[in-house]
Amino acid sequence: MPWRRGRCASRAAADPAWGGAGPAAAAAARLLPRAGAERHGAHRAGGQVLGGVRLQPVGGRRRHLLPGHLRALRQRQVAFSATRSTNHEPSEMSNRTMTIYFDQVLVNIGNHFDLASSIFVAPRKGIYSFSFHVVKVYNRQTIQVSLMQNGYPVISAFAGDQDVTREAASNGVLLLMEREDKVHLKLERGNLMGGWKYSTFSGFLVFPL
Amino acid sequence: MPWRRGRCASRAAADPAWGGAGPAAAAAARLLPRAGAERHGAHRAGGQVLGGVRLQPVGGRRRHLLPGHLRALRQRQVAFSATRSTNHEPSEMSNRTMTIYFDQVLVNIGNHFDLASSIFVAPRKGIYSFSFHVVKVYNRQTIQVSLMQNGYPVISAFAGDQDVTREAASNGVLLLMEREDKVHLKLERGNLMGGWKYSTFSGFLVFPL
Amino acid sequence: MPWRRGRCASRAAADPAWGGAGPAAAAAARLLPRAGAERHGAHRAGGQVLGGVRLQPVGGRRRHLLPGHLRALRQRQVAFSATRSTNHEPSEMSNRTMTIYFDQVLVNIGNHFDLASSIFVAPRKGIYSFSFHVVKVYNRQTIQVSLMQNGYPVISAFAGDQDVTREAASNGVLLLMEREDKVHLKLERGNLMGGWKYSTFSGFLVFPL
Repeated sequence: MPWRRGRCASRAAADPAWGGAGPAAAAAARLLPRAGAERHGAHRAGGQVLGGVRLQPVGGRRRHLLPGHLRALRQRQVAFSATRSTNHEPSEMSNRTMTIYFDQVLVNIGNHFDLASSIFVAPRKGIYSFSFHVVKVYNRQTIQVSLMQNGYPVISAFAGDQDVTREAASNGVLLLMEREDKVHLKLERGNLMGGWKYSTFSGFLVFPL
Repeated sequence: MPWRRGRCASRAAADPAWGGAGPAAAAAARLLPRAGAERHGAHRAGGQVLGGVRLQPVGGRRRHLLPGHLRALRQRQVAFSATRSTNHEPSEMSNRTMTIYFDQVLVNIGNHFDLASSIFVAPRKGIYSFSFHVVKVYNRQTIQVSLMQNGYPVISAFAGDQDVTREAASNGVLLLMEREDKVHLKLERGNLMGGWKYSTFSGFLVFPL
Repeated sequence: MPWRRGRCASRAAADPAWGGAGPAAAAAARLLPRAGAERHGAHRAGGQVLGGVRLQPVGGRRRHLLPGHLRALRQRQVAFSATRSTNHEPSEMSNRTMTIYFDQVLVNIGNHFDLASSIFVAPRKGIYSFSFHVVKVYNRQTIQVSLMQNGYPVISAFAGDQDVTREAASNGVLLLMEREDKVHLKLERGNLMGGWKYSTFSGFLVFPL
């Protein structure tokens, strides 16, 4: 089919759409990159949506139309989910930036979450859902964790219990993000001495605007 | 283009689709109403989805078709997210209705969340996702917060720790909502003396039925 | 209309798409199975999306096209939400499997959550969102609850406070699920003596792949 050689197909080939899974979790093998997996999914979905159009006598325009539709579909598929799988103490960098760093990606469709910096960058304008659960291990300090949008705190969560082994500071929100807007988690108060294993951070595009 | 004068365009013009942002948060400037912003987004999205159709010789029907598609798109875009940005004590009204009132809207696509009453009204039948985090400040009472659908509790959350500065009663659920169904948060037990700053309440249409 | 007799219509008739609601909650009456309810919804949504196609002279193909579109729509509509409405002690089976069992379904579009086993089975490959809040009543043990994908823990949550009446172990995640992948909640540590009333477990298909 000629439209397989269109813009979308080459974009798909160039795009590392599947984020690599981390080193732990036995289930991780399911999450390793699979060449062409997303592209096939998109084609199938596109075919369903466009079933009627394919039968129209659109002639030479078809190869231009379909990639546009597939591109639209792909651009709606934005999702990430990261966890902390180790119990390491905060690094020097953690203590400087106060960023909550994650070390394992479960999902990273579109590759818009950067694990090293643990920052998500919106690929397009839209409404995004974010939620986080930052787990502290036993220590007597209260922590405050904020979700930062372009460096400004939007929401906060707290964990401060004195007699609990592990406790999570959890919250979630929907945000209007412009293209290139950034989101990350910041430790506003307290420390995570002992590590923050079992913490999670997830987000997805609810709908574009 | 003639269809810009169709039903959808006039609806869009008349519709205060962007809820006004609250007074606080530095990020709030991003969230102020922008004339035509959603309309442009909808047109662009509609254009992608309908790219093929536009090229069909549908003649005079086109101006009727496209608004229908755009209307369908807009009707799927329902989302709100509200926070409590101040630490005020419960007002007389709070104490009477036991409603958890919010004072800042981050997202209100379609304007179906009313900040003053802090009630969300479903614009159409569908599956909706709701989640909340109601934060109490230090006091020795246990709170119970319920998500109310048309006045009946559907789920509850608790916060009752004795020695914690701030603690959240959190829960989330998917609900089948009929058109005009209402959802709000109610303090079933305990009090929020000292305020409920940092509380959040969010919801969106997962898919229509 | 001839396409009402197509494959999709018969599927819709055969498919118990609405999970029955549980015995409790006054709001449950809203959630009882309604014959043809989803089918009507799907047709209406399909009609909007396909408005243009309907007017094309596609002739005899139409009855084949529309069911495909409707089928595609239906396959994207996957959501469940379950709660625990009673305070029963763990049963012998609970103690053996350590599964967190639920007893009330609020939403079960597609019927992919089995209440008896409290296992969700993915009907198709895609990105799914899951979240849970497992509430323990007063006891001095810490609980650890894991979300299991095909028998392997993916994320965990904790509740361990000593002096609290009710406290939730909460977390959420996005997962890539293959068709037939299974998800359930497991009590990894501690016990739920006294019951886990008010616990919730929800999930939905964010987008197919």
